Amino acid sequence: MDDRPQIAIVGAGLIGRAWAYVFARGGLTVRAWDPDAAVRDDLDAQMQAMVREAGGPADLTGRIRAVATLEEALVGAALAQENGPERAETKRELYTRMDAIADRETVLASSSSAIPASVFSSGLPGADRCLVAHPVNPPHLVPVVELCPSSETAPATMDRAEAIYRAVGQVPVRLTCEVEGFVLNRLQAVLLAESLRLVQDGVCTVQGLDDTIKHGLGRRWAFMGPLETISLNAPEGVADYMRRYGPTLARLADDSARGEAFNDSAAHIVAVAFPDTATPAAVRARTAWRDGELAALDAHLRSRASKD
Amino acid sequence: MDDRPQIAIVGAGLIGRAWAYVFARGGLTVRAWDPDAAVRDDLDAQMQAMVREAGGPADLTGRIRAVATLEEALVGAALAQENGPERAETKRELYTRMDAIADRETVLASSSSAIPASVFSSGLPGADRCLVAHPVNPPHLVPVVELCPSSETAPATMDRAEAIYRAVGQVPVRLTCEVEGFVLNRLQAVLLAESLRLVQDGVCTVQGLDDTIKHGLGRRWAFMGPLETISLNAPEGVADYMRRYGPTLARLADDSARGEAFNDSAAHIVAVAFPDTATPAAVRARTAWRDGELAALDAHLRSRASKD
Repeated sequence: MDDRPQIAIVGAGLIGRAWAYVFARGGLTVRAWDPDAAVRDDLDAQMQAMVREAGGPADLTGRIRAVATLEEALVGAALAQENGPERAETKRELYTRMDAIADRETVLASSSSAIPASVFSSGLPGADRCLVAHPVNPPHLVPVVELCPSSETAPATMDRAEAIYRAVGQVPVRLTCEVEGFVLNRLQAVLLAESLRLVQDGVCTVQGLDDTIKHGLGRRWAFMGPLETISLNAPEGVADYMRRYGPTLARLADDSARGEAFNDSAAHIVAVAFPDTATPAAVRARTAWRDGELAALDAHLRSRASKD
Repeated sequence: MDDRPQIAIVGAGLIGRAWAYVFARGGLTVRAWDPDAAVRDDLDAQMQAMVREAGGPADLTGRIRAVATLEEALVGAALAQENGPERAETKRELYTRMDAIADRETVLASSSSAIPASVFSSGLPGADRCLVAHPVNPPHLVPVVELCPSSETAPATMDRAEAIYRAVGQVPVRLTCEVEGFVLNRLQAVLLAESLRLVQDGVCTVQGLDDTIKHGLGRRWAFMGPLETISLNAPEGVADYMRRYGPTLARLADDSARGEAFNDSAAHIVAVAFPDTATPAAVRARTAWRDGELAALDAHLRSRASKD
């Protein structure tokens, strides 16, 4: 008998396979189910290709097995990572089934980026073991995972989920309540709104905007986050920073872009700046480049972590 | 005679010395003036210490000379980088003097993070050769520099400034008009406002907020910027992304934090999370760590640049 915690992957598309990779890389055994038989049949070949691309250990795929039924995936699992379609009714049906099948102690976690846990779990007998565990794509190269409970999710569920993600090398961030966009997409939304407004107003080019982040603020945010950043930007720390710069920053925030920045004209300006991403094949090629950079950056940051 | 472009550093404090380092590292000769004789006398020792810390070439300091008068710094300079106090009247007096002394073709650039060029140059005979060239601190480790003209700044001035910064390895971003906060601090302000609101509302901890960026979005923004990021986040590029996610992001932006997020309570919550930055000595120690990480990240990113 293998006593390593077992993980169920429910939905074995792009995100589901990346999650299978994360858990298997972390030494756990994985059973993956997908409603599409072709996806199940192709899983092993897909995982072997991922291992080759990402340079993972060859024995990783030996810990991942495609199974023919949801029941086989869930039985005995410590945690189920669900990666189904982003439709509320579909998720609700799926969680009703999963909750009926899974052992009482199995954590049921959704990769959803937009559907809060209450939508698919409220009122279920096992609503207390349901949550959203929202990754960044692809989770095997970007470690953060947002743990977002509903009001019914038990603290013990959050504890167990956090321990499992941390054990396989991810960085879980616990939210305390349901909030639209969770944390990550709220932060992305405000940065994008202001960015789109600035390029639409012609203050700078799309390239200039991206340069300001990637050769400027992004250099700090890659290893210290925006709040630690400001703790070092005044001689006497954060309180000093807020006294010096708070009023100016408040004025800038009051004047910042709102939802109307997400308009067709702004989309067009950005699309024109990235002509190499106008077709699915081009997006895939550039995404492969991005993933190579993410892997290299992850290796760099891990090599520095001991120096913190 | 040395025909390398010569740079004048006006104000040789922390930022002025970092600029001297940047230009000398790029092979240019630097004459640095500061109104404080003690600062001038100490310059060579300070620059040698910087070279040791940053591992720069030993001959770098040979290209930097402290001079006793503003005149000696400015004569023959292709560009003057001014790093005086952030007070409008002080800057206006200084630019009136600099404009009277400097050769007609010398570019006069201010490191100001908050004072637009019109405030210190409007109406001067040489207003057309004045601009703000706003760095990130420290500029020898973070390459972006925002070039911010007033309505009187000549396009030829912007061209010359851009060429000089680029020649020494910085990444100049040209703005087209005066806008409060330029680009970088507008982007920082919106991200900080939403971050402060989320931790103040208890949605996540300060650590969790920073983790969401540094182990999530910051991993992309360190090498691709927020707009190229979204160009890869839908199968058919930016237009596809905006159709899929625009309405949700617009709703999040409409609901985002405003200036009131910069309040004492939020400052307190962040300060408590970073007890190691409560004194100037502690801030300096942690800043040294940050600068080591910035240098390592810069080296990593430069080693990858050929693979773009």
